[in-house]
Amino acid sequence: MPLSRKTIVFIRSARVAHLATADAKGQPLVIPICFVFDGKEFFSAIDEKPKQVQPQSLKRLRNIGENPKVSLVIDRYDENWRKLAYVLVLGKAKALATGQKHRRAVRLLRKKYRQYRGMAIDHRPMIFIMPTHWKSWGKF
Amino acid sequence: MPLSRKTIVFIRSARVAHLATADAKGQPLVIPICFVFDGKEFFSAIDEKPKQVQPQSLKRLRNIGENPKVSLVIDRYDENWRKLAYVLVLGKAKALATGQKHRRAVRLLRKKYRQYRGMAIDHRPMIFIMPTHWKSWGKF
Repeated sequence: MPLSRKTIVFIRSARVAHLATADAKGQPLVIPICFVFDGKEFFSAIDEKPKQVQPQSLKRLRNIGENPKVSLVIDRYDENWRKLAYVLVLGKAKALATGQKHRRAVRLLRKKYRQYRGMAIDHRPMIFIMPTHWKSWGKF
Repeated sequence: MPLSRKTIVFIRSARVAHLATADAKGQPLVIPICFVFDGKEFFSAIDEKPKQVQPQSLKRLRNIGENPKVSLVIDRYDENWRKLAYVLVLGKAKALATGQKHRRAVRLLRKKYRQYRGMAIDHRPMIFIMPTHWKSWGKF
């Protein structure tokens, strides 16, 4: 799907997306994520919002290790259902913890979310999502 | 997880949730849904918001037919990240198109969402989700 300018603006202005991963047994897991879309890929930090386990044990990362297929949705809810809209992505995810791509993602996330500026996301894994299918619904 | 009163209020006051299904090959799919939680089960209608395919061909329904494992999240985003919160559910889903349970779900959905009162959701499939695991995060 060639992305329209309006679709890109819709994606970029969203503060939260929802990411679904699945383990090797097919159990899905959906979580809200902060993210950046650079026009090609999505990325999302494993940040310091309090987690119950160490980053590398996080279920989303274990799922991606077992099964890289993911789905991501950016949507708008409105009580006027004519204004509902979403952009849905299927893609492949991988985690990186260092390197040039990781550093760039840290920079872009901190640019979009000032909340990340004081957080050590540069020392934590990052999830990268390369879209393989796009679907959009509703008016942007 | 025994649900606290605050958790139940948080779930019930949410207007939208995000549902992840996965097909037999482990490809997840996440979509925003309108829903009701009756204290035990969640349900969500296949409604008349314009769809590109017939209800029975919808990918979410095909996925549930192949693999009943699903995940559902109800969350709150706030720029003050100390206010972030979510309730995450893993569960088993099934679709019903008729019957007493279906009629009750139609009634409860129309009570929560006035938008459904003029829609023929009574003649469409409904997704029922029975939670098997609960996790909550953040302050409600």
